Amino acid sequence: MTFTEELKLKTQIADTWVKKLAPSGDDIHKEVFEAANYSINAGGKRIRPVIALAVCEMLGGREEDVMPFACAVEYIHTYSLIHDDLPCMDNDDLRRGVPTCHVKYGEALALLAGDTLLNHAFETIANANAPGETIAKALKILSALSGANGMIGGQVIDIRGAKSHEELLILHKKKTGALIVAAAKLGALASGRPNDEDFLAAEGFAENLGLAFQIKDDILDIEGDVATLGKNINRDSETGKVTFVTLFGIDGAKAALDEYTGKAKAALYRFGDRGNFLSQLAESLALRNR
Amino acid sequence: MTFTEELKLKTQIADTWVKKLAPSGDDIHKEVFEAANYSINAGGKRIRPVIALAVCEMLGGREEDVMPFACAVEYIHTYSLIHDDLPCMDNDDLRRGVPTCHVKYGEALALLAGDTLLNHAFETIANANAPGETIAKALKILSALSGANGMIGGQVIDIRGAKSHEELLILHKKKTGALIVAAAKLGALASGRPNDEDFLAAEGFAENLGLAFQIKDDILDIEGDVATLGKNINRDSETGKVTFVTLFGIDGAKAALDEYTGKAKAALYRFGDRGNFLSQLAESLALRNR
Repeated sequence: MTFTEELKLKTQIADTWVKKLAPSGDDIHKEVFEAANYSINAGGKRIRPVIALAVCEMLGGREEDVMPFACAVEYIHTYSLIHDDLPCMDNDDLRRGVPTCHVKYGEALALLAGDTLLNHAFETIANANAPGETIAKALKILSALSGANGMIGGQVIDIRGAKSHEELLILHKKKTGALIVAAAKLGALASGRPNDEDFLAAEGFAENLGLAFQIKDDILDIEGDVATLGKNINRDSETGKVTFVTLFGIDGAKAALDEYTGKAKAALYRFGDRGNFLSQLAESLALRNR
Repeated sequence: MTFTEELKLKTQIADTWVKKLAPSGDDIHKEVFEAANYSINAGGKRIRPVIALAVCEMLGGREEDVMPFACAVEYIHTYSLIHDDLPCMDNDDLRRGVPTCHVKYGEALALLAGDTLLNHAFETIANANAPGETIAKALKILSALSGANGMIGGQVIDIRGAKSHEELLILHKKKTGALIVAAAKLGALASGRPNDEDFLAAEGFAENLGLAFQIKDDILDIEGDVATLGKNINRDSETGKVTFVTLFGIDGAKAALDEYTGKAKAALYRFGDRGNFLSQLAESLALRNR
């Protein structure tokens, strides 16, 4: 199987699970499920669950053991986009090529759809077919990385804008990196009994990939195409935010992208050929145009 | 110890734990911890953690085993208030006698402080000093009751307003009742090995108490005093919401309050004298003026 075929297959697997385990329930307040599923179905790349799945398989684990945890990360990611897009935050009306959740369903329901998905991430972990000890560990990993010392902390720094290279690194490590690290760690956890070195290597891969991913986002905000990206561009310069591009120029940002992509691939060295898919994934994410 | 002394003691215990386990972390985004703790410290009655503690003790369990779970419920409750008060929801500027979180910290930070507390509730469960099996069960109980089929579902119905007695009961059971039930079930869980009958009795107590609690809220919205309540009154009639008072009149609402308070007390029958505190708590909540 070529890398492209394997990526397509893993993305389809992730997409199927993410939709299968999505929130559902009582008809009397079905509009909140519609709003939550609208954002879930709005065509994300499913990068995070794909990483969880790939790490789990790299370490010898099985799809059915990792996917509930992988989906939990995607639900956290989706809620964070819904809340980030709200008028009191980034006030974005376009996301993944379609109107944002609050444009479609109104602010109140979008707020509650976000809360629903945040809560549902943890409910999905609770309902995983896994021993209590594994569920407790998964809960500890995800809640630490998605909370105020992880992803939410990054959003807080983002509101006021990073003021230095150091702050920018912390912002990206938290806002984007934390969930990618969560995906990798949950993938390792679900594989069975990963040893400490495997765990650390997966984490190192994810940390560097997360930085590379965000730097690429900054570059696409300048060089990207609205139709291809499915979201508005030049948002960063319009809002006066410090990014890798504003700090180091477009060439400096591209050099940093190469650097962190290289570090991500290097972290996979101990896995030999089993790390090939994730290594190629890091390369393809650096080359993406959306 | 009189009931009043015991309530004061348990409230102090709950308050101390809720503050001790509150979100804290990196200085670089300390404003989100300040905003979250502002709402935590704004003087709630701590009813939910007190109920968890009292149920646990009634069944022979220990304070230190239940309080992390009890605090998790209080963090969910506090986040729901922050998000409920936002301009896109109830647009309230006064809560517990002080400006609401978004009035003090701005909407974006209030939104993220709410997200922080929702996430922190589950992180607090993850970090409880308990076996993995217990943590997994606690996660399942809380996530089901705080999510879109529990509390959030109630908020969704509340946005558009209940249209019938039946819908109003569902609204209250979810919006207010679900977290009170969560507190009781987590208290029973933390006590060790509650039998099924104990669990069901604690749940029955909490369901009826939750309804009584909300009916009393509806009555206070008409008869209460702004200074004593610490929030604005007549919000329900101003916004045209159907409540127990608008459906049945003030006397009908008071009769329903008595009915559900009586049912809550009856559910405690099997516990004999050990149920005295919770029975008196139900009575005192029906008589409260704030």
